[in-house]
Amino acid sequence: MTIIEKCIQNKIPEEVKKVAQEEKQPVEFIAKGLVEGTIVIPCNISKLQTTNYKLRIVGIGKGLRTKINANIGTSPQRINLEEEKGKLQVAIKYGADAVMDLSTGGNLREIRKMVLENSTVPIGTVPIYQVACEVSQKGFAISGMDIDHLFEIIEEQANEGVDFMTVHCGLTRKNLAILKKSKRVAGIVSRGGAFLAQWMNINKKENPLYEHFDRLLDIAYNYDVTLSLGDGLRPGAIADATDSAQVAELSVLGELVKRARQRRVQVMVEGPGHIPLDQIEKNVRLAKKLTANAPFYVLGPLVTDVAAGYDHIVGAIGGAMAAMYGADFLCYVTPGEHLRLPTVEDVREGVIASRIAAHSADIVKGVKGAKEWDEKFSHFRKDLDWQGQESLTLDKEKFRKFHPEKLNGAKICTMCGKYCALKISTEIGV
Amino acid sequence: MTIIEKCIQNKIPEEVKKVAQEEKQPVEFIAKGLVEGTIVIPCNISKLQTTNYKLRIVGIGKGLRTKINANIGTSPQRINLEEEKGKLQVAIKYGADAVMDLSTGGNLREIRKMVLENSTVPIGTVPIYQVACEVSQKGFAISGMDIDHLFEIIEEQANEGVDFMTVHCGLTRKNLAILKKSKRVAGIVSRGGAFLAQWMNINKKENPLYEHFDRLLDIAYNYDVTLSLGDGLRPGAIADATDSAQVAELSVLGELVKRARQRRVQVMVEGPGHIPLDQIEKNVRLAKKLTANAPFYVLGPLVTDVAAGYDHIVGAIGGAMAAMYGADFLCYVTPGEHLRLPTVEDVREGVIASRIAAHSADIVKGVKGAKEWDEKFSHFRKDLDWQGQESLTLDKEKFRKFHPEKLNGAKICTMCGKYCALKISTEIGV
Repeated sequence: MTIIEKCIQNKIPEEVKKVAQEEKQPVEFIAKGLVEGTIVIPCNISKLQTTNYKLRIVGIGKGLRTKINANIGTSPQRINLEEEKGKLQVAIKYGADAVMDLSTGGNLREIRKMVLENSTVPIGTVPIYQVACEVSQKGFAISGMDIDHLFEIIEEQANEGVDFMTVHCGLTRKNLAILKKSKRVAGIVSRGGAFLAQWMNINKKENPLYEHFDRLLDIAYNYDVTLSLGDGLRPGAIADATDSAQVAELSVLGELVKRARQRRVQVMVEGPGHIPLDQIEKNVRLAKKLTANAPFYVLGPLVTDVAAGYDHIVGAIGGAMAAMYGADFLCYVTPGEHLRLPTVEDVREGVIASRIAAHSADIVKGVKGAKEWDEKFSHFRKDLDWQGQESLTLDKEKFRKFHPEKLNGAKICTMCGKYCALKISTEIGV
Repeated sequence: MTIIEKCIQNKIPEEVKKVAQEEKQPVEFIAKGLVEGTIVIPCNISKLQTTNYKLRIVGIGKGLRTKINANIGTSPQRINLEEEKGKLQVAIKYGADAVMDLSTGGNLREIRKMVLENSTVPIGTVPIYQVACEVSQKGFAISGMDIDHLFEIIEEQANEGVDFMTVHCGLTRKNLAILKKSKRVAGIVSRGGAFLAQWMNINKKENPLYEHFDRLLDIAYNYDVTLSLGDGLRPGAIADATDSAQVAELSVLGELVKRARQRRVQVMVEGPGHIPLDQIEKNVRLAKKLTANAPFYVLGPLVTDVAAGYDHIVGAIGGAMAAMYGADFLCYVTPGEHLRLPTVEDVREGVIASRIAAHSADIVKGVKGAKEWDEKFSHFRKDLDWQGQESLTLDKEKFRKFHPEKLNGAKICTMCGKYCALKISTEIGV
């Protein structure tokens, strides 16, 4: 039985109780969200049976704290298992709620094993990456992909315990035709989307993830893998935002959400990408409407194209706004996005930026404890209580580095010294 | 004659033409904005007479590119003229449109002289800082400040060529009483505001900058110094945002804007501070309404209190939204805000983050050339033209560092290598 089926039969599973506890919400609220499809708890059944409860069980969706995901993984150009382990650890240490292993270089099974064994948070993958790599190793282009091979890899990863998978099911032939007619600046920027488009283009066939969606549902059902319906046609440039190809794909994803729900399979929906500030609200509302409030998982979004090297900041701006308007899950963007495979330090920067975005939104989303966190922190700040602030800040190491201990006794910082406004404010009783 | 008077008499000064050229707007548009008070061009008359036109003339206000300011300056704890010079240079190099010297440590005249001599952008100050330092050097608390001394320093700085000055004129006794009745978490977080409140509290007198506002206008008129009406009661915690003290002060600033305009003195208005995401639009619209669309200059705003060490990102989130809703001038926030006097590196990070925020907003504000910049950049990205991207990116040095040259020939980056979506996209003609 999937977690949804258990909730329908009112056999509330442990995971639902754990999420309820962490979110300070009634168990019934979480269960109802799962049944209605507004909440997912990515948690592979085979993992639950084999691991103990050290795992953080993470709920994503309406009424819950905004969650963040960190992408790690090798590329053909950079393959280092230890570095990937370092990225995983740093991502979790700084507060990633989920990690995706997007490796496309080296021994993918070995890397995924390491990630699954060492992660305390849900793990996601994009199975078609492995398919593409294996096809490539045999000397073929992705167009040589065999459909059975694709589903075998999906099942293999499900069997290993992957909790959620990005599947670009909405990139249909019809939508590819829409894209071809449009005058996009950046074309396709999704790797999975590009692989499928290339396959479809050469083989003149329908997207197998769309055509055989029931086969996908079978696997997802058997392992209770959460499907993350990817946006292979997401805009990769401000100029391409909210265009007909993007909206057409989203519309298909909405249909597939219904089918997944009918099958009692957990499903969320992915969103862009590059969106200008004034289209973020529209994008979130449209996604929620077309997908009947499925949890919405956005990449960034990025509100300008030109800030390479600083896309964690660009993504934090877009992510904060998207989450404010209802996005439930933010995929981080690292400073290195568009330029290089992220380093361990890039991962840290990306996670922190994304947490800032998520928390800023949670303050106004009414997430329990969010406002209180800021208020408590600011009381410490007013009292010039540096230890108190450090205990509540996002990055304690940076806090210590930036605030040298020698000044602790004086209760001031080097910014204003004796001219500290907070000190004066307290002296005059305001 | 002030620049406003010249425009009224239709003697369009050179500075107006320069701004019109830079903004790709008709000269008449700029002149009209100056006369109506929706645009300022901070440019001290005495400076104009003595320096050549290497100075960048900067317009701030409605219909113009969103500008950013970088605060530099010493504190009692850190005094290093060379470091301040480094901050000034880095701020200008990375795109600050204005710099404020907020020094409170060391020989303030010497520091300001260095800043004025080396800056190619408008320079702002907060004159009461110098007053407080001089009073303190004499062994007194700020409550010992003499009113004539305050105005002498203001005139001295105007005479030296300071282009704009923050003056906390709206912190009246009435507003201080409102603050005292309120239950703020963080009290007063503005240094200038705190100095004045302490003075008023002990001397039981009205804020001299409010009481003698006409004296201030005389000086501003004589040198055509742009007044930046400071928000001494700005919220310094999310919990304090948009409270009665803040709004009461803003209301007074609105009155003072009228008086400055009557005197043909350029004036802008400062805004917070710490504001949750869902109050930013309201804050900007309220400020514009109460001040009859005076240029609005915000500090951040910061959308959460808890991210010490990363407040440049927090400020970029708030700044992008504020600018989208009409803020004209963003004061950067550095990673070190709340923890330490910014270093040269902090200044660089702060300027870049603030530029990202301003530009993201300019894309949707309809600022000429903003969208086009992104589109051109994205064409280079699609074509895997790394030189082209580098030529248009915000930080060329970081771009080069993040994208190693050795891969240039291969037209890929280490992120995806041969699995590059853009490459595939081009191959299949989309």
